[in-house]
Amino acid sequence: MTTKLKRSHMCGTLNEAQIDEAVTLMGWVQKRRDLGGLIFVDMRDRTGIVQIVFDKDISEEAFKRAEDLGSEYVIAIEGKVYKRQSVNPNIPTGEIEIFAETLDILNTSETPPIYIKDDDDVSENLRLKYRYLDLRKPSMQKNLFLRHKTANVVRNFLSDEGFIEMETPVLTKTTPEGARDYLVPSRVNPGKFYALPQSPQLFKQLLMVSGMDRYFQIVKCFRDEDLRADRQPEFTQIDCEMSFVDVDDVIVINERLLKKVFKEVMDIELQIPLQQITYKEAMERYGSDKPDLRFSFELFDVSEAVKDSQFKVFTSAVAGGGSVRGINLKGYGDNFSRKDITSLEEFAKTYGAKGLAWIKITEDGVTSPIAKFLSEEEMDSILRIADATKGDLLLFVADNNNVVFDSLGHLRVEAAKRLGILNKDEYKALWVTEFPLFEYDEEENRFVAKHHPFTSPMEEDIPLLDSDPANARAKAYDIVINGYEIGGGSIRISSSELQQKMFKALGFSEEEAWEKFGFLLDAFKYGTPPHGGIAFGLDRLIMILAKEDNIRQVIAFPKTQNATCPLTNAPSEADSKQLKDLSIEVKIEK
Amino acid sequence: MTTKLKRSHMCGTLNEAQIDEAVTLMGWVQKRRDLGGLIFVDMRDRTGIVQIVFDKDISEEAFKRAEDLGSEYVIAIEGKVYKRQSVNPNIPTGEIEIFAETLDILNTSETPPIYIKDDDDVSENLRLKYRYLDLRKPSMQKNLFLRHKTANVVRNFLSDEGFIEMETPVLTKTTPEGARDYLVPSRVNPGKFYALPQSPQLFKQLLMVSGMDRYFQIVKCFRDEDLRADRQPEFTQIDCEMSFVDVDDVIVINERLLKKVFKEVMDIELQIPLQQITYKEAMERYGSDKPDLRFSFELFDVSEAVKDSQFKVFTSAVAGGGSVRGINLKGYGDNFSRKDITSLEEFAKTYGAKGLAWIKITEDGVTSPIAKFLSEEEMDSILRIADATKGDLLLFVADNNNVVFDSLGHLRVEAAKRLGILNKDEYKALWVTEFPLFEYDEEENRFVAKHHPFTSPMEEDIPLLDSDPANARAKAYDIVINGYEIGGGSIRISSSELQQKMFKALGFSEEEAWEKFGFLLDAFKYGTPPHGGIAFGLDRLIMILAKEDNIRQVIAFPKTQNATCPLTNAPSEADSKQLKDLSIEVKIEK
Repeated sequence: MTTKLKRSHMCGTLNEAQIDEAVTLMGWVQKRRDLGGLIFVDMRDRTGIVQIVFDKDISEEAFKRAEDLGSEYVIAIEGKVYKRQSVNPNIPTGEIEIFAETLDILNTSETPPIYIKDDDDVSENLRLKYRYLDLRKPSMQKNLFLRHKTANVVRNFLSDEGFIEMETPVLTKTTPEGARDYLVPSRVNPGKFYALPQSPQLFKQLLMVSGMDRYFQIVKCFRDEDLRADRQPEFTQIDCEMSFVDVDDVIVINERLLKKVFKEVMDIELQIPLQQITYKEAMERYGSDKPDLRFSFELFDVSEAVKDSQFKVFTSAVAGGGSVRGINLKGYGDNFSRKDITSLEEFAKTYGAKGLAWIKITEDGVTSPIAKFLSEEEMDSILRIADATKGDLLLFVADNNNVVFDSLGHLRVEAAKRLGILNKDEYKALWVTEFPLFEYDEEENRFVAKHHPFTSPMEEDIPLLDSDPANARAKAYDIVINGYEIGGGSIRISSSELQQKMFKALGFSEEEAWEKFGFLLDAFKYGTPPHGGIAFGLDRLIMILAKEDNIRQVIAFPKTQNATCPLTNAPSEADSKQLKDLSIEVKIEK
Repeated sequence: MTTKLKRSHMCGTLNEAQIDEAVTLMGWVQKRRDLGGLIFVDMRDRTGIVQIVFDKDISEEAFKRAEDLGSEYVIAIEGKVYKRQSVNPNIPTGEIEIFAETLDILNTSETPPIYIKDDDDVSENLRLKYRYLDLRKPSMQKNLFLRHKTANVVRNFLSDEGFIEMETPVLTKTTPEGARDYLVPSRVNPGKFYALPQSPQLFKQLLMVSGMDRYFQIVKCFRDEDLRADRQPEFTQIDCEMSFVDVDDVIVINERLLKKVFKEVMDIELQIPLQQITYKEAMERYGSDKPDLRFSFELFDVSEAVKDSQFKVFTSAVAGGGSVRGINLKGYGDNFSRKDITSLEEFAKTYGAKGLAWIKITEDGVTSPIAKFLSEEEMDSILRIADATKGDLLLFVADNNNVVFDSLGHLRVEAAKRLGILNKDEYKALWVTEFPLFEYDEEENRFVAKHHPFTSPMEEDIPLLDSDPANARAKAYDIVINGYEIGGGSIRISSSELQQKMFKALGFSEEEAWEKFGFLLDAFKYGTPPHGGIAFGLDRLIMILAKEDNIRQVIAFPKTQNATCPLTNAPSEADSKQLKDLSIEVKIEK
């Protein structure tokens, strides 16, 4: 089980350049075939596969041992590289093969419960339980290598730009105004709890107060929220903060960062400066603050054209302060049957739409269930606004603006998905700027911060904090790629007074504000520079670069949707002594 | 409070090369002096300090504003660089000064509660409460920059060597056989808990099982233990693991890593290969498995020479299976009075020594309270073994070997400290190898793993696992610098059978072993390569490079000895809804 050999090469790196060289390789048995008195073994390491040949005439001992080899056995061989008789063009080492002179079996393997190949179709739960086997798959190794390389490029770029990576605490303080915290009971301070950070937000701001000037960190963050395909209980952020900057400075350096990542990791030239559109424009054109720009299908507004029509659904939406908007699936009318449109309507309803009106422009003219409610002039207006021509399908939602944008925004993407026109090799990045400072929380019956409570309003909107918070805009920006928000940030408030005004707008009394954020308000009294930053979701960025649909494909040991780990069985029960040491008890409500 | 200016230079980087240039600077007011109708401001950013001059004749407006400037105000100035009349040789920018044309006051500051200078002598608690001000000190900024640079050098070295940085979970499973865990209650799985990792040990081994070949990570780890100057609840490891290696491979690459760090970060040439000594030799020569080699004072053994003497303390120690050993404070005899020696004895007693025998060799011959118990021949033997000459002071402890090594090992360092011969500019690194596999735990009345239960025995010692565990040696190694263990690792067990044998030696039943480590034993069945690795304590390494005595000096936001954060007041009480969501209750025992 041990060997004194030292590896000379990695399997997948060998080619004609090594012909006649003696090599020592170590790796796994991918496959064994016995053929015409020879034994052929596909030997694998993380660089790829190479063919090893065992020939009785070269070494009877090695040949005999090779007869025992099974899949996933770990072996070390010494041998010589030869030009291969029957070239295998499917693998990079296909021009050569190694005739083995010695064979050490370093470890055996039982039959693995999952196959070590990319197209193995087993349940994700089984894949996670045997993650150490799942990670042997070339696709998973490629994803994790891409992740490593991206992090490395990011770190070196930011270091070269004068950013200092600094670690902030993991055992820290609960985050008021954030998502749900993970708590950690303190043994030394009975009855008290640390919280795991949802982001290093306050610490990075304090580092700016301390004059560190440019900070970054690639760091784990934690949110105890219900999970989705692109969410995990712990996730990784590329977290940056800069002093003496405004929005444009943060944008410029971060799009240069992205350009670098795309070039070094993907060999793709990202054109910068990236497009910038305001939140308002994003909503009106795409019904979303994270628009996918790989396709058009932009929203249009027909409220004016239909507000006096005979169609009550339209008129009452407009009369109620809402709107009637649509998208034009230009040229794809024939791709959607009535049944397909009904299915799209069902989809739109999940986002609150009460129905989906439609107009198809066919050979024979306009087909539409709502045509009968519209005058000729109204129909003409709609078609003109929608830029409708033969072969188009128009879809409409009439409601309050929130529902209209949300349902049409999602419908736009869903239609593109169903049409199969989303190209994963194409990357469309843009900035969305001028986000609203607040959004109204119906449950709490007050305004809450759209980004976070430390986000600076736009200077000209500061007076709106008192008079019209709903229309105050923030110095906040998101970076969006292919419909995913991969990062977001803002210029922060750097004055104690403005920060207190902000807390007031959020409904905190002065006392509450000091109780929750006293140390920040304190810090702002001692010379705080103007500052701002950004945080990228590394998992999501890698997911997009790796062309995966699920962040679990780019995380070595992810949790299930139920926040468990099938490999280690975490979380698990604690013993009573541990709990007693921590001064807590389990109490499960029925 | 806002400025449209863009910074052109950093304060501390300006010199004669910029004379006559127009510059835009941003930073803090370190000091203001009004002198002869001019106002002089020392302006600071993270790169250093530069002198700004406000002259009414250049800009009356800027001059007027400058009259209001106080310490730690944040300002932006435009101005022109001039050769300075009275050169200040103490700062790099001392050859020049800036005559300001404009001044924007970006933020004001109240009088800071601590001074922004390195020799400010305030309590550490106050420093931590106002950490954002404490971190403005040049020494703290230098330490954190050194930390960043070191991490960056490490990452690039390891990446170039084919190591892939991979993230492992923070929310994971409790560690049997480890220190005390921090627990995190799971909301979604009531009554169950995650544990924060004490190290990514099992995950990195599983990554080797998965064929990743070379892994590293700079990663936070957590241990809920009582704190000391070089311990924190959360600490950072440089964690590495390699496949298809033995001890020498891990040592070679890691000393190349250290050489690189010393060269790039400290501009010091570390000579490699480093010295290697076995654990046994380290104990016998230095009484410690982390010897400080910056000075000699090696241990010597006089057991043979005194075993039949009249001094009962000596004879009974030897008869009881222990030993009598000493150190020679060569040439420093005159530095220690009788009172000093008594103080050293008190020190030795804290490590279990019952007393401290001593012999001084003076002008007038041998002075010693034990001389009367020793024959001339015995005394001669001792002096010969100790290589004693005039001016020396010999100190002896007689006891069981544990006490002898522990007390003399610490005494050796303590004497050097008191003599002031520990030079922080000198770095002596070495490897300590062949650690014992087990140590006996008196409390648990069984053997426990000295390193951890996954450490491979030396091949020739495998039979000792059954017959004589106390003498089984491990393929374990520590890297030691100046008396600090800065890293340690081992070759791991890679066979399910040997791992089970190991668990048995630790006193686990087969059932317990599978219950606690089943997923590892399972993984070992499917083709595990030989593998091993190391983990460096980053905090401690930086502490040594920064020439600090306390790791809190190299951590941005450390905890106090009581595991609290005076800045954020973490940990704090949780509200009852949070606890209810987590299915736990606080129960503090009186």
